[in-house]
Amino acid sequence: MDFSEKDSVDAVVASFADTPDPRLREVTESLVRHLHGFLRDVRPTIAEWEKGIEFLTAIGQKCDEHRQEFILFSDVMGASMLVETMEAARQAQDATASTVLGPFHVVTSPERELGDSIDTLGTGEACLIEGTVTGADGVPIPGARIDIWQADEQGAYDVESDRQPLGNGRGLFTADDEGRYRFRSIVPSHYPIPTDGPVGDLLTATRRHPYRPAHVHFIVEAPGYVPVTTHVFVDGSPYLDSDAVFAVKQSLVREFATVADEAEAARHGLPNPFRRARFDVVLQPEGPA
Amino acid sequence: MDFSEKDSVDAVVASFADTPDPRLREVTESLVRHLHGFLRDVRPTIAEWEKGIEFLTAIGQKCDEHRQEFILFSDVMGASMLVETMEAARQAQDATASTVLGPFHVVTSPERELGDSIDTLGTGEACLIEGTVTGADGVPIPGARIDIWQADEQGAYDVESDRQPLGNGRGLFTADDEGRYRFRSIVPSHYPIPTDGPVGDLLTATRRHPYRPAHVHFIVEAPGYVPVTTHVFVDGSPYLDSDAVFAVKQSLVREFATVADEAEAARHGLPNPFRRARFDVVLQPEGPA
Ligand SMILES: [Cu+2]
Ligand SMILES: [Fe+3]
Ligand SMILES: [Fe+3]
Repeated sequence: MDFSEKDSVDAVVASFADTPDPRLREVTESLVRHLHGFLRDVRPTIAEWEKGIEFLTAIGQKCDEHRQEFILFSDVMGASMLVETMEAARQAQDATASTVLGPFHVVTSPERELGDSIDTLGTGEACLIEGTVTGADGVPIPGARIDIWQADEQGAYDVESDRQPLGNGRGLFTADDEGRYRFRSIVPSHYPIPTDGPVGDLLTATRRHPYRPAHVHFIVEAPGYVPVTTHVFVDGSPYLDSDAVFAVKQSLVREFATVADEAEAARHGLPNPFRRARFDVVLQPEGPA
Repeated sequence: MDFSEKDSVDAVVASFADTPDPRLREVTESLVRHLHGFLRDVRPTIAEWEKGIEFLTAIGQKCDEHRQEFILFSDVMGASMLVETMEAARQAQDATASTVLGPFHVVTSPERELGDSIDTLGTGEACLIEGTVTGADGVPIPGARIDIWQADEQGAYDVESDRQPLGNGRGLFTADDEGRYRFRSIVPSHYPIPTDGPVGDLLTATRRHPYRPAHVHFIVEAPGYVPVTTHVFVDGSPYLDSDAVFAVKQSLVREFATVADEAEAARHGLPNPFRRARFDVVLQPEGPA
């Protein structure tokens, strides 16, 4: 019998019937249902569908070692944040909230000592970021690993910028015996996600702005705990209420307060005044939540 | 307010609210609904979603001048055929049925004279394919353009094969004053769609075979008529009932009869015996169906 609109889902789902991995079978079946549902809703002409194929192809072809345009597409469609939110719902509620990874975790962060600066250029507003990594019981986690990456004061990551050497704005730290970490940096700027690719074209065509509020990325992990991928957002930044990738959680916004204290500035090797933020991280123990 | 599973569709749809083109707005809104619906159904872990992103990225990166892996993905998911079927439903029912374009229309067919062979190697079983292009009213369409491409007797297209020069198995013909066309070729083999990419990996993982029944591709067009993209399928070919891309329509299957006729063979410049198929093409006039 010929393929028909009415039976299309059944015909294609049937072709996947012998899939040995039950999870893969479930995923392909659901993908067929929603893909065909989308097509039946919008009823694209062949020419429109070809444009869609070209768009997806261009996204794949824009990807390279330092650029992940498909993550960007997932981000602006809210897909990354939805997956993130569903995964977070499996976690304990008293741990630090997670948020999206984003497309810029493409360079291994250089190992640095506590108190080091992750900014090697010093062109932005100096700041100190510090906190303690603990379990949900409040017990410090010595030796926790803290992977940091951020944009600079102009809103660019090292991989996007000729001004910055690779590794600038990145650091991998190890918490001290009391679970504490601290590092120097500059206050990151809000920034546009990369707009020179097909995802940027989509935002332009749909009159969406490409901006994300200012933030610093964290991945914190320690043996025996569930790692957390998150951000700390800079309070007062523009776009906190319209993040292009939907990733803001109120519990992750922190004040970067201005501190004028000559002695304290000297102690940390910072100019006076400087900005200071505290971001304590609570990890959930591994095992059943 | 934080992004939530419950409100994810509304939040992302709202971000597209200022899209000036109403069609683009409709498409993005439906895409958000079905994409989020898919994600809520399968509830991927972040690691699974990363695998999905990697899969889509690999599909894009597999594409080049002679390879269109995203069309292939659309084909094996039945999406191409569903779009095809919905477009066909808009056309007159008495015109020749259309079917998928497929991923191999990537080389411009060389212009050839009626009666020429599209096969320059002569390693397969010789055949003659002929027909008349008419309107639905039966009136011939002189000067109709007939673009042909096919796999060889081993099931390979020129772009897939070191044996074949580019343009082999392809031809662009112009119907004569009575709307007739004819060309020599070899009987194509059934063939596997390309399996050395991510789509092939998907078929392997899901235990789907990659085969398509033997066929010759046609695009037929003439001024004032709706062009048709179709195939003629070789009757008796394996996989007519399980085409990997769901593209078989019964009305497109033709007998490639064996003809033993010394004079007729000589007249067409063919060995005796040879195979012969007739495929008349009916085009729908442009304008409201
Ligand atoms: Cu759906
Ligand atoms: Fe970022
Ligand atoms: Fe084909």
